[in-house]
Amino acid sequence: MDTQGLPVTETTQKAAEDAAQRFYASDRACQALGMKLVEAGPGRSCVTMLVRADMANGHGFCHGGVIFALADSAFAFASISHGQPTVAAGAMIDFISPARVGEHLTATAQEQWRGARTGLYDIVVTRSDHTVVAYFRGRSHAVNLTPKASPA
Amino acid sequence: MDTQGLPVTETTQKAAEDAAQRFYASDRACQALGMKLVEAGPGRSCVTMLVRADMANGHGFCHGGVIFALADSAFAFASISHGQPTVAAGAMIDFISPARVGEHLTATAQEQWRGARTGLYDIVVTRSDHTVVAYFRGRSHAVNLTPKASPA
Amino acid sequence: MDTQGLPVTETTQKAAEDAAQRFYASDRACQALGMKLVEAGPGRSCVTMLVRADMANGHGFCHGGVIFALADSAFAFASISHGQPTVAAGAMIDFISPARVGEHLTATAQEQWRGARTGLYDIVVTRSDHTVVAYFRGRSHAVNLTPKASPA
Amino acid sequence: MDTQGLPVTETTQKAAEDAAQRFYASDRACQALGMKLVEAGPGRSCVTMLVRADMANGHGFCHGGVIFALADSAFAFASISHGQPTVAAGAMIDFISPARVGEHLTATAQEQWRGARTGLYDIVVTRSDHTVVAYFRGRSHAVNLTPKASPA
Repeated sequence: MDTQGLPVTETTQKAAEDAAQRFYASDRACQALGMKLVEAGPGRSCVTMLVRADMANGHGFCHGGVIFALADSAFAFASISHGQPTVAAGAMIDFISPARVGEHLTATAQEQWRGARTGLYDIVVTRSDHTVVAYFRGRSHAVNLTPKASPA
Repeated sequence: MDTQGLPVTETTQKAAEDAAQRFYASDRACQALGMKLVEAGPGRSCVTMLVRADMANGHGFCHGGVIFALADSAFAFASISHGQPTVAAGAMIDFISPARVGEHLTATAQEQWRGARTGLYDIVVTRSDHTVVAYFRGRSHAVNLTPKASPA
Repeated sequence: MDTQGLPVTETTQKAAEDAAQRFYASDRACQALGMKLVEAGPGRSCVTMLVRADMANGHGFCHGGVIFALADSAFAFASISHGQPTVAAGAMIDFISPARVGEHLTATAQEQWRGARTGLYDIVVTRSDHTVVAYFRGRSHAVNLTPKASPA
Repeated sequence: MDTQGLPVTETTQKAAEDAAQRFYASDRACQALGMKLVEAGPGRSCVTMLVRADMANGHGFCHGGVIFALADSAFAFASISHGQPTVAAGAMIDFISPARVGEHLTATAQEQWRGARTGLYDIVVTRSDHTVVAYFRGRSHAVNLTPKASPA
């Protein structure tokens, strides 16, 4: 069952996967950061990323913005999984432990609640040994978007 | 005067600029994202970035993670300006309006409060016409870091 | 000028004061906690409260929920000042220093941004010597409410 | 097992209950707001409250500050359950649906992560039919407090 108490069927699962894959395929930032969409379903997703040397900040750790970007992408795939275009209204991130260059990070997104126009999603970013890098909570907002085919 | 009521002198201004410049020079993620450190002072900084095509998300707008990364960098430069190494403990971002490919964004960071080990910083991300893209609030934590010269 | 670039006139100032006073007069929680509405204007307000003995938590300091309630009230008065009913969608608070029983606290709210349906407000809670107790940031959402005259 | 991978034994369970009960007994704000500590364990707690008429805001719904106070109390009982004094460093709340006078609210706190000095806790506030009123996330900070026996 999803967070609105609706059953997850083969149809809704397939629709969620398709919506996430389409969004991922057109998301150039995700590609540039080497993110991979591992799986998606109604209100959930899983995205991975290798921390590259060009993602390090001045301390030699993965830049917080890159960790946020990974979590934010998982958030996006989970929130658009119901077929309605959504954008992030806002998000909060708590950094638990620094990630190092060479580490493989995984962001797992789970919908907590969804209403008519807004939703709340919790994302956890972990490394391979399952220790936590960051906790992220995002609020989505449904929109009527006409994506620009060729932005200026 | 800074947020601890101390006067900003030529010395503290110079030290803040030097600390920010050193951190910026060693921050590979900032370089890769094309960020420029425009200015820095005790508890403040200004960073700019051009939204490139490879920063767009599936809606064709600048990926929220990239906007966060810009604000987070301004936050970092402002918080390390007092000479003590700091890391981000957490942050909250509110997205106000989407940024488009080709737009020049500016993140302006201002310290609101600083204690012995923690600090609070407000960052505003604007575009060229001064309209707001996002509001960001970050909490810093002072650390004893030995940056890894050659991270694994 | 307010955050939408509109001039603050005697009319909008008077309307904001009236809206805040009406809301305050019907807000039983504010009364029960001894809050006083000191002033209000378009997108801003100021509310004070004495920390009573029955507001102390187990550490003997003012309960964080009571400090939040003070900031949240200032937020409400500022956000309803434009004549449109609003509710809090969410808020974040950073506690800077504990408040003690007997201290007079002041919450000052300032609108940062306002769109068609949502707004962002920053509230600072200080004590008499102007030192900061907490920083609060709230997001409002405009609603069509029919307040219940006699809630169940 | 708790969030640090330690087993929950009769001893740690008893210690957590005792710590929460002691804190609750000395928390005058909790008493004044009619909160009841239903249960507590290592890193978790459950607190209930009836929404009284004197907790209503100007819309006739439960004041957001009172809902926050309930969640914040559950947060406090969960975070002090390990025997170390802690305070709230900050918190974020998302209001999902308004609570009405006469409703019984329950706040359930669960530790997500705990380090040497800080911890992260998720609290959900629900009404009797299990629908959600608010989601709360709090960061705790361990302190060395000498509670004032007779605060000024």
